[in-house]
Amino acid sequence: MSYAKQMLESDNSSIVDTSLLVATIEALNDCAQACIADAGADLRGDDVGSMVKCIRLCLDCTDVCTATVGVISRGTQYDEAVTGPLLQACVAACARCAEECEHHAKRHPHCRICAQACRRCEQACRELLAAARS
Amino acid sequence: MSYAKQMLESDNSSIVDTSLLVATIEALNDCAQACIADAGADLRGDDVGSMVKCIRLCLDCTDVCTATVGVISRGTQYDEAVTGPLLQACVAACARCAEECEHHAKRHPHCRICAQACRRCEQACRELLAAARS
Amino acid sequence: MSYAKQMLESDNSSIVDTSLLVATIEALNDCAQACIADAGADLRGDDVGSMVKCIRLCLDCTDVCTATVGVISRGTQYDEAVTGPLLQACVAACARCAEECEHHAKRHPHCRICAQACRRCEQACRELLAAARS
Amino acid sequence: MSYAKQMLESDNSSIVDTSLLVATIEALNDCAQACIADAGADLRGDDVGSMVKCIRLCLDCTDVCTATVGVISRGTQYDEAVTGPLLQACVAACARCAEECEHHAKRHPHCRICAQACRRCEQACRELLAAARS
Repeated sequence: MSYAKQMLESDNSSIVDTSLLVATIEALNDCAQACIADAGADLRGDDVGSMVKCIRLCLDCTDVCTATVGVISRGTQYDEAVTGPLLQACVAACARCAEECEHHAKRHPHCRICAQACRRCEQACRELLAAARS
Repeated sequence: MSYAKQMLESDNSSIVDTSLLVATIEALNDCAQACIADAGADLRGDDVGSMVKCIRLCLDCTDVCTATVGVISRGTQYDEAVTGPLLQACVAACARCAEECEHHAKRHPHCRICAQACRRCEQACRELLAAARS
Repeated sequence: MSYAKQMLESDNSSIVDTSLLVATIEALNDCAQACIADAGADLRGDDVGSMVKCIRLCLDCTDVCTATVGVISRGTQYDEAVTGPLLQACVAACARCAEECEHHAKRHPHCRICAQACRRCEQACRELLAAARS
Repeated sequence: MSYAKQMLESDNSSIVDTSLLVATIEALNDCAQACIADAGADLRGDDVGSMVKCIRLCLDCTDVCTATVGVISRGTQYDEAVTGPLLQACVAACARCAEECEHHAKRHPHCRICAQACRRCEQACRELLAAARS
C-alpha cells in the first residue's frame, strides 16, 4: 500500500472520496517523476535538436504537477477558485506533453512511458475535477 | 537591474511585452519567497493555533507561484490552455493568502509584508492574463 | 512496475546499478509526498502548538527530497561534488524528521507513516552514497 | 527594499546576521530564476546540441537553490547536519553551472548573465557557511 494511500486513510478531511484523491496524488507524483526523467533522457539522446519541444513540455508538466500535488496533498479544504484552475492547467499540461511524447514513442521508449504517465495523470485530474464539482 | 530583466532583454521570444513579463516574474518570485518566510514566521510565533489557515494558504501560494514562474520563465510559447488557468490559479491563491494575511497584519509585520507581496503578484498575474488575451 | 523503474530500465547511463537508483528515487518521492501530507495533517489537528517542530522538519524534508530526486532522476552523470553533499543533506533531513515524527507516532498515525517513509528514504540515500563512492 | 529583507528584519531568530541571510536568500532566488530562464533560452537557441550540458546543469542548479532557499528562509534553527551539506551542494551546483555558462558567455548573453548569478550565489553560500561555522 502506498504512503499516499496510508496517509489519506489515516487522516482525510476532504470533500471528495479517499480513493479518488489517492489515485490523483499517485498519478501526479508519477507524472512529475516521469517528466523529469524523460527530459533527462531526451537531453542524453543523440537527437536533442528534435526533442526540444518535448523537453520544454516535460519541464512545464513537472512544475504544474508538483504544485498540484502540493495543494491537494496538503488538504487545505478544496477551494474551487484555486484548485479548479490548477487542475485544469494540469490537465492541459499533461495533454500537451503526452501528445508530443506520443510522436516520439516508437523511437524512444522513455517517451512512450512518459506519455502513459501523462495520460493517466490527465485522466485522474479530470476525474477529480468532475467529482469536486458534482 | 534584476537578473530576470537582463535575461528577458537578452532573449525574449514571448508574445507579450518584456517589461510586463519581467514584472510578473519578479512579483511571482517575491511572493513565493514572502510566503515561505511568512509560514516560517507563523510557525515560530506564540499564537500558532490562530495562524493555521495563514500557514496553509502561504504553502499553497508558494507552490502555485513557483510553478507559474517556471512555466512563464521557461519561455515556451504562451499556451493559453496551460498558462491561462495556471495564472488564474495564481490570482486566486494570492488573493486568498492576502485576505488571510491582512487579518493578521496589525499584530504580525511579517503578515503585512506577505499580504503586500501577494497583492502585487495577484495584480501582476491579472495584467499578464489580460495582455495575453488581448 | 513503477514509472521510475520503467524509465531507468529504458535508459540508464548511471554509474550505479539501476535497481538501487530506482529504489532511491521511489523512496525520495514517497518521502517528499508523505512529508507534505504529514505537515497538512499536523496543521488540521487540534494540537498544532505541539506539532510546530514536526511541521517545519516536514517542510524542510520535502524541499531537500524534491531537489534530490530532480538531480538524480535527471541523470546528469553522478557528480560527487554536488550529489554527495545533497544526499548527505537528505540523510540528515530525513533522520531529523523521522526522529520528531516518531515522538508523535502513537497519537498520530500520519506521523507514524511519515516516520517510516523518512527512515526508508534515509536508508536508500545512505546506500546510494555508499555505492557511488565504492 | 526587497520583501526578503523586510521579512527578515521583521522576524529574524537566526544565529547568523540578518544582512548575510538576506543576501544569501536574494542570491539563491536570483540564481534559481536565472537558471530556469537560461535553460529556456538554450532550448530556444539554434545550437541546442552544444548546450545540453548547460541545460542539465541549469536544471540541477535550480533544484538545489530552490531547496536551499526553502530551508534557510523557513528559519528552522540552523541545523548544521542539514544546512551545512545543502549549502555545500549549492556551492558545487552553482560553480559547475557557472563554469559551463562561462564557456558560452561570448555567444550567448543569457549564459553570461546566468554565470554571474551563479557566481554571486556560490559566493553568498560560501559566506553563509563560513559565518554559521564561526
